[in-house]
Amino acid sequence: MGSGATDVVVVGAGVIGLSIAWRCAQRGLAVTVLDPAPGSGATWTAAGMLAPATELHYEGRPLLALTLDSAARYPGFVAELADATGVDVGYRRCGTLQAAWDAADLAALRDLHAFQSSLGIESELLTSRQLRAAEPALAAGLPGGLWAADDHQIDNRMLHGALRRAAGGAGVREVTARVGGWLRRGQQVVGVRTESGDRFEAGTVVLAAGAWSAAVAELPAQTGPSTPAGLQVPAGLQASAGLPAEVVPPVRPVKGQTLRLRGPSDLLNHVVRGAVRGSPVYVVPRGDGSLVIGASSEEAGFDLGPRAGAVYELLRDAQLLLPVLGEVRFDEVSTGLRPGSPDNLPMIGGTVVDGLLVATGHYRNGILLAPLTADAVAGLITGEDPGIDLTACDPRRFSRSEVSA
Amino acid sequence: MGSGATDVVVVGAGVIGLSIAWRCAQRGLAVTVLDPAPGSGATWTAAGMLAPATELHYEGRPLLALTLDSAARYPGFVAELADATGVDVGYRRCGTLQAAWDAADLAALRDLHAFQSSLGIESELLTSRQLRAAEPALAAGLPGGLWAADDHQIDNRMLHGALRRAAGGAGVREVTARVGGWLRRGQQVVGVRTESGDRFEAGTVVLAAGAWSAAVAELPAQTGPSTPAGLQVPAGLQASAGLPAEVVPPVRPVKGQTLRLRGPSDLLNHVVRGAVRGSPVYVVPRGDGSLVIGASSEEAGFDLGPRAGAVYELLRDAQLLLPVLGEVRFDEVSTGLRPGSPDNLPMIGGTVVDGLLVATGHYRNGILLAPLTADAVAGLITGEDPGIDLTACDPRRFSRSEVSA
Repeated sequence: MGSGATDVVVVGAGVIGLSIAWRCAQRGLAVTVLDPAPGSGATWTAAGMLAPATELHYEGRPLLALTLDSAARYPGFVAELADATGVDVGYRRCGTLQAAWDAADLAALRDLHAFQSSLGIESELLTSRQLRAAEPALAAGLPGGLWAADDHQIDNRMLHGALRRAAGGAGVREVTARVGGWLRRGQQVVGVRTESGDRFEAGTVVLAAGAWSAAVAELPAQTGPSTPAGLQVPAGLQASAGLPAEVVPPVRPVKGQTLRLRGPSDLLNHVVRGAVRGSPVYVVPRGDGSLVIGASSEEAGFDLGPRAGAVYELLRDAQLLLPVLGEVRFDEVSTGLRPGSPDNLPMIGGTVVDGLLVATGHYRNGILLAPLTADAVAGLITGEDPGIDLTACDPRRFSRSEVSA
Repeated sequence: MGSGATDVVVVGAGVIGLSIAWRCAQRGLAVTVLDPAPGSGATWTAAGMLAPATELHYEGRPLLALTLDSAARYPGFVAELADATGVDVGYRRCGTLQAAWDAADLAALRDLHAFQSSLGIESELLTSRQLRAAEPALAAGLPGGLWAADDHQIDNRMLHGALRRAAGGAGVREVTARVGGWLRRGQQVVGVRTESGDRFEAGTVVLAAGAWSAAVAELPAQTGPSTPAGLQVPAGLQASAGLPAEVVPPVRPVKGQTLRLRGPSDLLNHVVRGAVRGSPVYVVPRGDGSLVIGASSEEAGFDLGPRAGAVYELLRDAQLLLPVLGEVRFDEVSTGLRPGSPDNLPMIGGTVVDGLLVATGHYRNGILLAPLTADAVAGLITGEDPGIDLTACDPRRFSRSEVSA
């Protein structure tokens, strides 16, 4: 496995970490990515919706600017990936139908439509008949819906595979290892060491470990020169208490489950969403007939066990919207941990510790925000201006608000 | 892989085939078992209920004699397996609670209880309060139930593993290969050949291929001497049309799905069954906390894809009986094909073709009937009398009834 010195170490090889690594390597930087199980986190469980409009929430205006910007970057991002790797990542510009479950839900969709319009987001209200004409597999009798023509999808697992290949092709070194601690010189972060003791020094470390970002930030730090080989140093002598508390990103794991079914590839034409008796559910049809159903949302710590009740509820609600789903093949249950953030906005940027950037807290929008996050972080490291206003994502906003409170 | 001559060839290494092979080897016979994927069929998907009483149906008196006999053989069978292998096969004498869903269902259970009593099977009607006291995780408000103290369970997967080890220890040769055709000498069956051309000659061939038994019986036959090595024989020259139609066992695949959840090992004390709005469901608690939920029943040919609607219905009905199941871990969906029989009775015994025995068509009772089937077939081959009346299981009954019709 070995150690080494490099320009950038990225901790985390999910879609966020690899996108950053790839963009940095494209700019001529030497990059190493460390992950004990690349792409096994939220990257694997995600459904890959790219949905600024239908994921819009009333409190979410600052987030909207980011999601719209990143959605606009997607066509170029995907085209570049295809050029670099020859991999089709299943980017489908299929649009999204949000079906209303009942009259109250339809009224809520009308309000959402008005809110979207006030922000310049195009969407269209549909009658019951228009909804069913757009997606004949929908249950009869739904009162109407909303058509979001610009909410698309990508196959997140294929995206991860392509990013891995593109990063490798651009010279990124991928190390399958768990980070065990930080390397510091004075107040500065100068690298990480793995659990097995390998040291990776770098001018910049980017913490992109998703739901595990806080736990990684809380690992112990080692200061001073490397321990000379062969010399046994008493445990703890060179270990400090770790990084300052204010750089620990306040991410929390938000457990999500998705199901994967498989039907004929022409079963659905669009992403279908709904809120069945208030409970949100979506169905994302891939080009190969795979149907991703999501997603549960639970605050259950780092427990990754799929909950039988969540499987049941997703199947129930998805079948109520699309009865034909009862007849298709059941392929998989997947459970992941979203990196939840206190204000539902990610943390992207520098910290109070020199040499340490973070890119985490993407919560429900990690796949969508990957192109923007990668461009932003690469810009911060190289000094290029990617034209992204990161004020709302400043990782230091939480420590600041504590000071001013 | 090689070929060979042996006393007995068993086609099929599920629980039925391996039990037969083991019993034959114990009696000094040289046995070879062939299967392309040992134990991957109904053996793997089964829940392992040993339930003569609660599986009793009004038309099922002849079956009852067999299931009671085999249930009585289980303690000795399991003890011998444990002696031979050191493997605990999860035989739990836990009894079975059949919960009534509503008043009509309770009335049906009262009738079943009376029918059981008339046949000398012990069971006990329970009040709502007694039912809940016996199994506190049951939903509140169920009107009563039936206690079948002698309906137990076994871990069918551990049973299969133990049988494999015991058979191997007794000298059974297991060959991982798919049978491609029959070897005949005159009217007699004298062995099988594999798809890759290996020949296995035997004094007796036992067809125990579960749901695939008819398809195997319909394979082409090869008569006359072996093809000399190196000599290319024109295709078809030595191939006859196969075995006579009347020895093809009329088994059909009946698709079943089971789920495996996982909870605390003390969640349930007994097998729990019910018929929620007429739809049967059962939950079998293993000693390790695994909870097997079954089982769907569909006539869908040889399709092995798990159906999303069946997963949904099993979770729904199991949760209606045992609400706590919504909170436990979802581990697995398994799909298997039961070997259905026209009269729901197995086919065990000789055929009109010398050298060919069949042991198939066990439908919902393959695990339960394994000890009886193995003793019966070993008795038929060695001439020992196992004390089993196989009249109702005679494989020739279907061709006879066609003649008399």
